[in-house]
Amino acid sequence: MPGNSFGQLLRLTTFGESHGKAIGGILDGFPSGVRIDEDLLQRELQRRKTAQSPWASSRSEEDELEILSGVFEGFSLGTPIAFLVWNKDQLPVDYDHLQNTFRPSHADFTFEKKYGHRDFRGGGRSSARETLARVVGGAFAKMLLNTLGVEITAFVNRIGTVAIPKETELPELPVSEDSTVRCPDPETSEKMLRLIARTQKEGDTLGGEIKCIVRNVPAGWGEPVFDKLHASLGKAMLSINAVKGFAIGSGFDGAAMKGSAHNDLFEVREGKLRTKTNFSGGVQGGISNGEEIVFSVAFNPVATLMKDQQTVDKSGKPVMLKGKGRHDVCVVPRAVPIVEAMAALVLADHYLLNRAARI
Amino acid sequence: MPGNSFGQLLRLTTFGESHGKAIGGILDGFPSGVRIDEDLLQRELQRRKTAQSPWASSRSEEDELEILSGVFEGFSLGTPIAFLVWNKDQLPVDYDHLQNTFRPSHADFTFEKKYGHRDFRGGGRSSARETLARVVGGAFAKMLLNTLGVEITAFVNRIGTVAIPKETELPELPVSEDSTVRCPDPETSEKMLRLIARTQKEGDTLGGEIKCIVRNVPAGWGEPVFDKLHASLGKAMLSINAVKGFAIGSGFDGAAMKGSAHNDLFEVREGKLRTKTNFSGGVQGGISNGEEIVFSVAFNPVATLMKDQQTVDKSGKPVMLKGKGRHDVCVVPRAVPIVEAMAALVLADHYLLNRAARI
Amino acid sequence: MPGNSFGQLLRLTTFGESHGKAIGGILDGFPSGVRIDEDLLQRELQRRKTAQSPWASSRSEEDELEILSGVFEGFSLGTPIAFLVWNKDQLPVDYDHLQNTFRPSHADFTFEKKYGHRDFRGGGRSSARETLARVVGGAFAKMLLNTLGVEITAFVNRIGTVAIPKETELPELPVSEDSTVRCPDPETSEKMLRLIARTQKEGDTLGGEIKCIVRNVPAGWGEPVFDKLHASLGKAMLSINAVKGFAIGSGFDGAAMKGSAHNDLFEVREGKLRTKTNFSGGVQGGISNGEEIVFSVAFNPVATLMKDQQTVDKSGKPVMLKGKGRHDVCVVPRAVPIVEAMAALVLADHYLLNRAARI
Amino acid sequence: MPGNSFGQLLRLTTFGESHGKAIGGILDGFPSGVRIDEDLLQRELQRRKTAQSPWASSRSEEDELEILSGVFEGFSLGTPIAFLVWNKDQLPVDYDHLQNTFRPSHADFTFEKKYGHRDFRGGGRSSARETLARVVGGAFAKMLLNTLGVEITAFVNRIGTVAIPKETELPELPVSEDSTVRCPDPETSEKMLRLIARTQKEGDTLGGEIKCIVRNVPAGWGEPVFDKLHASLGKAMLSINAVKGFAIGSGFDGAAMKGSAHNDLFEVREGKLRTKTNFSGGVQGGISNGEEIVFSVAFNPVATLMKDQQTVDKSGKPVMLKGKGRHDVCVVPRAVPIVEAMAALVLADHYLLNRAARI
Repeated sequence: MPGNSFGQLLRLTTFGESHGKAIGGILDGFPSGVRIDEDLLQRELQRRKTAQSPWASSRSEEDELEILSGVFEGFSLGTPIAFLVWNKDQLPVDYDHLQNTFRPSHADFTFEKKYGHRDFRGGGRSSARETLARVVGGAFAKMLLNTLGVEITAFVNRIGTVAIPKETELPELPVSEDSTVRCPDPETSEKMLRLIARTQKEGDTLGGEIKCIVRNVPAGWGEPVFDKLHASLGKAMLSINAVKGFAIGSGFDGAAMKGSAHNDLFEVREGKLRTKTNFSGGVQGGISNGEEIVFSVAFNPVATLMKDQQTVDKSGKPVMLKGKGRHDVCVVPRAVPIVEAMAALVLADHYLLNRAARI
Repeated sequence: MPGNSFGQLLRLTTFGESHGKAIGGILDGFPSGVRIDEDLLQRELQRRKTAQSPWASSRSEEDELEILSGVFEGFSLGTPIAFLVWNKDQLPVDYDHLQNTFRPSHADFTFEKKYGHRDFRGGGRSSARETLARVVGGAFAKMLLNTLGVEITAFVNRIGTVAIPKETELPELPVSEDSTVRCPDPETSEKMLRLIARTQKEGDTLGGEIKCIVRNVPAGWGEPVFDKLHASLGKAMLSINAVKGFAIGSGFDGAAMKGSAHNDLFEVREGKLRTKTNFSGGVQGGISNGEEIVFSVAFNPVATLMKDQQTVDKSGKPVMLKGKGRHDVCVVPRAVPIVEAMAALVLADHYLLNRAARI
Repeated sequence: MPGNSFGQLLRLTTFGESHGKAIGGILDGFPSGVRIDEDLLQRELQRRKTAQSPWASSRSEEDELEILSGVFEGFSLGTPIAFLVWNKDQLPVDYDHLQNTFRPSHADFTFEKKYGHRDFRGGGRSSARETLARVVGGAFAKMLLNTLGVEITAFVNRIGTVAIPKETELPELPVSEDSTVRCPDPETSEKMLRLIARTQKEGDTLGGEIKCIVRNVPAGWGEPVFDKLHASLGKAMLSINAVKGFAIGSGFDGAAMKGSAHNDLFEVREGKLRTKTNFSGGVQGGISNGEEIVFSVAFNPVATLMKDQQTVDKSGKPVMLKGKGRHDVCVVPRAVPIVEAMAALVLADHYLLNRAARI
Repeated sequence: MPGNSFGQLLRLTTFGESHGKAIGGILDGFPSGVRIDEDLLQRELQRRKTAQSPWASSRSEEDELEILSGVFEGFSLGTPIAFLVWNKDQLPVDYDHLQNTFRPSHADFTFEKKYGHRDFRGGGRSSARETLARVVGGAFAKMLLNTLGVEITAFVNRIGTVAIPKETELPELPVSEDSTVRCPDPETSEKMLRLIARTQKEGDTLGGEIKCIVRNVPAGWGEPVFDKLHASLGKAMLSINAVKGFAIGSGFDGAAMKGSAHNDLFEVREGKLRTKTNFSGGVQGGISNGEEIVFSVAFNPVATLMKDQQTVDKSGKPVMLKGKGRHDVCVVPRAVPIVEAMAALVLADHYLLNRAARI
């Protein structure tokens, strides 16, 4: 199958180049009878945009969403939900110098090698603008999951060298949207903002880490042996621009632990079989066990710098890539709703898949 | 689609419970005309088995592979390749006590919740014995990749608290199969063996980390935006038993770096456009860029301990789970060929998918 | 997978309700580097519309196609091609009486039963207006097939009781678009037009049969044992509104023949191995054999009549369904480009699939 | 996806060459908790075999079925059900003359063209022996459908020029297995047997037509717009060896009817909304409407004759293909359980798919 579809029973197919006419998608397999929450849709788009932030780029994306099908009288029809956002802010002239130069750690070189012919304006299909369609698809998935009580909350755990200290007691999630860095620890937030300001002055950029917690998933979701729940989540996260790592539960730290410390022993809590610890991250044998699903996603620093970079052009001639325009210093806070959206798509899909597990 | 198939154009479907009649699979989409290398098949199975190792369990799996179809006069037919290994060593009596107890951090509880009815003997379908079929499928994928010069080499980078120091100069890979822990650094190997011996005495277990390096993949493999090469690799690895994390290139460390340090600048080397560094891990925008593909996989410690664990049974009654039988202290070295096999399946599939990218 | 996608490597996903905002789709997996022929696109849409015909309904569909992505500087990018046509002619008031009545032999009843909630205006998702997206997707597939010399030509073989006599020598195909019934035999065309005029006066409707011939497909396309070329063609045709039958080569007539008459013996013609007859219809064992691919598609008569029908409403109360508005007497001529479009999608997909058959 | 899998949530993957080691498959996605009916399995295999019949070949296929996984203590586990039948009756020496000659209307030529390398013994993968795996998969699907009351009954409607007269009142179905031709009309059966005997003497072969009736399918199964229920059935049937046509409800006859005669008007019967007639064949808009599902399948005559055929060999040299060995005169009666099996797989899959249609 071509690579622009995600999911099995709930399937999002996206389209759009950064500087083409529009970005959008089709969400197929969304069950009929779900109340469509327009506010949730707008809120998620707004969370992705956050143009007001100190660390965000200037492109004023007036992202007006149009739903083209699949919804009737406020409820889903069970037919494909198509949607789009027009690209209003097209300034192709900005990008002409990129026709012959491959920006370092972008996808210019690999798209050229794969396809021969590419839209070099602003990254084309490889632009992070594509994630807009994921956020819309994810918002629908959230509406479905809301009917089941499932809650998905992501937050920023690290920006560059600044991370929430391990033993910090976190306040109730979700994080207030007042925090411009979407970090639930106020002290760490402060440090992050200072680091961002400093890095911006240097013309440099930052990466970071997002943590996501999913509550109220019942035991039973996940399809062994290949479509294990965390394998599907991992693929979803790794398909987001700039993601370099995924870990569930104890993750890479778990590799250094002993079995006697890592095993999640069972106990009875409030009349239910529960685990005392949750190093498994809510998934055992690829199937949800009813505990919180907890995972982390690592983002590398933004590849577009505001300072010059010495590289070579298409023909191999040395060229100085100028840092111009205005770009994000760090996209990690903006990626929070994207992580949640992809998690929602995975979980809603696995919910539907699990309906077929038993007679 | 049900969860026991992996891959799109090259698709492995596996079957088998740990104590059922047989373990095996069907590899469909394998192109015709590939010379079948029986030695490679046997070698890979042997590498997975390694019953001789100090850290391995006593089950003497006489894994005699039978190829049932798809091969004729030494070459692949392009038709499905079915294969199986009989389960000879069935001692169901060993497992009767597990009918009513869920072992901690195993899949007993989640399988019960998902399916209602389960084969409780030795983990049934969730047993690591299932990976045998992956190794066979991967061996075929390697035969295909060998025709293209692609080389896949994995090794053990960490066992428990012992890891290869970051700056260690590694010897030529692949690791000699003389190293029982499959670690290329002799000094670290020694430490790992000592840690294993010590942990075995304690009745405890260990996890670890495997690193995998793939050479000679041409630029162009990977299908944006969802089936990015590293997203497919991530899913493949996370679907292996006990895997808790996946990272490509700079991975989680990259989250702490600045853009100016992380960007892989282009240069001309031996007449070709290459990158000076490889923090991207050989994949940019989800497509291979011709550099080495480098990724890491984290395994949690073995969940079956040789010491007693206080847990509860199905009905919630406290029960002491006895550590009996003989089990692996650490499965990470055995997982090396499994990591390679899954990588081979992903890469061979993406090779075929990329054939459709251009006219 | 949800049901609104078609194809494996070349995959069309469509959306849109008859009286929603728009009809459109995403064509994913279309290879990069194909020259986009805007004329062909417009011509195919025009062929589907044919509002000038005596047998067509009055809805003046001003179908202005917008391509939203996947094309750059006149060539395909290898990224998803999204497109849409706005529904301008929305008169929902026309359809209010259908909220509580299920039209006979339409999909009103079954959509209600399946989804619970449905867009009752003009058939909603089950309207033949949906085929517009198929014609656009098929036009792109034709552009790809044109680079290989493959030619697809369909024509009307029967309308109601009037069919081209079996032994008629047909003129060179494709049929001139001057024939409003798209039948290559002038004498039969005349009879068809007379039958249509007579039936229109009665307020009744007609079905018919389309024959399709595909030339220059090389031997080798088709994926046994389930995705045989003619099985894929059959599914494609049976998914078109009102189709009730599919036959390849000798079809149902072949069931009455003897083997000695039916077998297509080999001979050498123009230096190539060819068959003397073509009862197989160009496909043997599910794979193209290089001969013309010949198949037939049966359409039932239009279900919307211009005369009253005695039926019952949702609650079971007798109701007279009035024949009002103006509707097609026979859609078979309009279905000719739809049959071609679906054939093109199948063939282009199998062309790409077959690239993976051999090393 | 490679072509040896069928179905989406219930997926059968088959393997095996006619003269390889074994024929078998994996049925994945079969829900847990279904009681496994061994008798039904044996009966279906026996029905396919019917070596006792006058029109069947002499190959004494001792088809002993082995279930390798997915079943535990008499119930399905929800894990993949693997099964196989060994090929005991291997006489490769019989087939050496076929290495350089392509049998007319077989798949020898097209397999050679597609794959380059083929197993020429007895048709290899293209042999009808492959359908054995379909019958096994279908038997499991029937067990699932039985829990829902769905009944599938196929019978022979035509052999060569002998068909059941249109107005014949048929006895209660299913047809008694006493009828060696599986035709429910005793008079027609007699004529069929005489035709078979006569044709056998001539060394010639026959085709025919199978009709299938499915009862008790509730309204709602089928996934518009591409995976319509009858489109899935059509593909399933067309993927069976020697099938040349598929028709649902009125089929090709419907093309000659007028709308006023063809429309299935609603009425209330036994308190339910039902249709007076069933020209739709139980499917409207691609979704089951609760009426009987009725379809027909056309088989061309057996391609292997008992008389000589003048053809050419691989290099184009004239060659006389000798009619030797002993082969089926007509396979249509044997195809009855195969048609039922494929119908069962389609229906069980659509049952599971439809579970995801609504919240």
